[in-house]
Amino acid sequence: MTKDLLIRNVRPLGGAPTDLFICNGRFAEGSTEHEEMRVLDAAGQIALPGLVEAHTHLDKTLIGMGWYRNEVGPTRNDRILADRKAKRALGIDARRQSARQIMQTLRFGVTHIRTHVDVDTEIGIANVNGLVATRDTFSGLVDVEIVAFPQSGMLVREGTLALMEEALKAGADIVGGIDPASIDRDPVRHLDAIFALADRYGKPIDIHLHEPGELGAFCLDLIVERTRTHALEGRVMVSHAYCLGMVEARRQAALIDALAASRIAIMTVGSPSAPVLPLRLLRQAGVVVASGSDGIQGTWEPWGSGDMLERAKFLAQRNGMTADSDLEATIDVCTFGGAAGIGLADYGLSQGCHGDLVLVGAETVAEAVALTPQNRTVIRGGRILVRDGLPSEDLPHVA
Amino acid sequence: MTKDLLIRNVRPLGGAPTDLFICNGRFAEGSTEHEEMRVLDAAGQIALPGLVEAHTHLDKTLIGMGWYRNEVGPTRNDRILADRKAKRALGIDARRQSARQIMQTLRFGVTHIRTHVDVDTEIGIANVNGLVATRDTFSGLVDVEIVAFPQSGMLVREGTLALMEEALKAGADIVGGIDPASIDRDPVRHLDAIFALADRYGKPIDIHLHEPGELGAFCLDLIVERTRTHALEGRVMVSHAYCLGMVEARRQAALIDALAASRIAIMTVGSPSAPVLPLRLLRQAGVVVASGSDGIQGTWEPWGSGDMLERAKFLAQRNGMTADSDLEATIDVCTFGGAAGIGLADYGLSQGCHGDLVLVGAETVAEAVALTPQNRTVIRGGRILVRDGLPSEDLPHVA
Repeated sequence: MTKDLLIRNVRPLGGAPTDLFICNGRFAEGSTEHEEMRVLDAAGQIALPGLVEAHTHLDKTLIGMGWYRNEVGPTRNDRILADRKAKRALGIDARRQSARQIMQTLRFGVTHIRTHVDVDTEIGIANVNGLVATRDTFSGLVDVEIVAFPQSGMLVREGTLALMEEALKAGADIVGGIDPASIDRDPVRHLDAIFALADRYGKPIDIHLHEPGELGAFCLDLIVERTRTHALEGRVMVSHAYCLGMVEARRQAALIDALAASRIAIMTVGSPSAPVLPLRLLRQAGVVVASGSDGIQGTWEPWGSGDMLERAKFLAQRNGMTADSDLEATIDVCTFGGAAGIGLADYGLSQGCHGDLVLVGAETVAEAVALTPQNRTVIRGGRILVRDGLPSEDLPHVA
Repeated sequence: MTKDLLIRNVRPLGGAPTDLFICNGRFAEGSTEHEEMRVLDAAGQIALPGLVEAHTHLDKTLIGMGWYRNEVGPTRNDRILADRKAKRALGIDARRQSARQIMQTLRFGVTHIRTHVDVDTEIGIANVNGLVATRDTFSGLVDVEIVAFPQSGMLVREGTLALMEEALKAGADIVGGIDPASIDRDPVRHLDAIFALADRYGKPIDIHLHEPGELGAFCLDLIVERTRTHALEGRVMVSHAYCLGMVEARRQAALIDALAASRIAIMTVGSPSAPVLPLRLLRQAGVVVASGSDGIQGTWEPWGSGDMLERAKFLAQRNGMTADSDLEATIDVCTFGGAAGIGLADYGLSQGCHGDLVLVGAETVAEAVALTPQNRTVIRGGRILVRDGLPSEDLPHVA
């Protein structure tokens, strides 16, 4: 049983110094110290709610596996092929690798993760099984949502749809999809199949949509239509959605309105080499915007730390934002936006919310985003998991 | 007098382990150990030549001055105004601030810096004088090239041109310029004035060119014409040059050819929110491409470390490059490209070159770029300035 925790001299979201009290795992009204309570002096650090990683690929990171020499071609299909080949050639153990990434990002304060996990006719649902095991390992420490993800295509690779169903039975939480036109070659059938799965298993949906320009916008139209027909408002996320940054302004505005009306969330990583999404317009229209690291240190991209505070900086940089108020908006995307996008309940620093937070040494939230200070303290349900950058010794042992 | 230095078990540019010998400040043929020689075991680390910062603003960083609340508007003119206002309001001491940034980036291995330094009718040449003092302080440790930079405009602000001349007399090494059309309102007269200064003082030129699309391309034409007329081939750099990433392909190709023919170097920081330059095409055509951090932690941008190894990563990311060979190309931009761009002689790890290098713990050069390992060792002319991330105690004291 985790003791109650009193955090003294802490600045929630960069505000005035105060105390935070976590009782039975949730923020509660201030309490006087008593013997059964732990007390932590935050020394004026800023408290942010636990950072939300809304889009990564825990089963693909090569952290700790030595350098992978990347000689992969430039197209998405080149990369999918290299990825599938590497799984076999390198023997990537999804269970071990996902645990490694979780431990790495926990030190940054990432307490909630949505991960896409490959399902294909070569690996089957082995990676989903690996992730289910990792999810159990970190139960109560870091929450993991598993998206069954047909990375190599679904309809174009016979047998994949059946595997998607198997993955959901095996414990995947969300139905994934990918480029209904350019990869799966039949946007209507791809989306119909995914929405049917979501219906049958009562699951939310999260679709990778890289399709460019009007092709992507058309797919987005199809997704909006189906979200309404299936009454899945508030349960669908579209990841990347580059088309939103590629179509002309009036079309863009109409798409944003449609997303807002059907409560479809958008996930953007703010990639420096992909089209930039209209972050400000999306948020102004009330669209939930979440963010993520995408794959880190894998065959797709050799870099990446998984730090969602750094991600807030990247989002600001990609959008040409430098004002403090904008940096506050991008960290909102990486906390509250992510929480809303992946459907977390009772998230935040208010009374009654889960007692999850990260302490960061900075004068303001904007400074935290700009300079991403390290040596953070991470608390989950009142339990101190990382203190000044050092993980607690009773965390799961990760090979 | 710096002792000779033998570096054992080191991998130049990621190659096979070998020894490097620095005698009288330069790389020399291998030597046997003797009493008057220092020996350093590099433990298989990679050696890169000292990193080259080809474009920064040392006089503007706010490192160590507390958080600056950025409420600046989005246009370049908003930013120029805020910048000029902050100089007075915050009392930014160019000498102290430049020393702080130099010390910060020396730990990353940055041994050569070209800095633009504001010259305007409010600050006069005070910042140039500050930088001259800092340049002296770091003489033999970190080389600093000073560009007299009319940040607030030159012809549009009466008296600035005379101050530019004063700055050159006071020790500035290079004639700067900025947006001849959109800021200085008269591209031909602006460029004529700058090239005349360069002629009169026998100095190279480095022009900030943010002008977009065909306007920028026209200014680039004017620069090319004057570079030829004034026989300044190999002595002109154009910084940013966003237009190169904005015009249609045939126009782009013609501009690239003209740059190559007149040996004009291009400096790009790979900004995530500005147009991306055709890095591969430029280098293939033989155009010298250098890179820099631009301003770090100032009123323009709240972030930035000044690490030119990290900059190589940013360049790759902005260009959508992930292959090892591409990462090797971007670190080449941040070393040899920078050296060629800012005119360094005898640069590199070959015999006869200055004994300047940085040791990085990585398996390959691509890994070094992707993961930017810290705790580097930095050597200048055979003298160890930073060892495993710790600066030597006999470096200049910086307040």
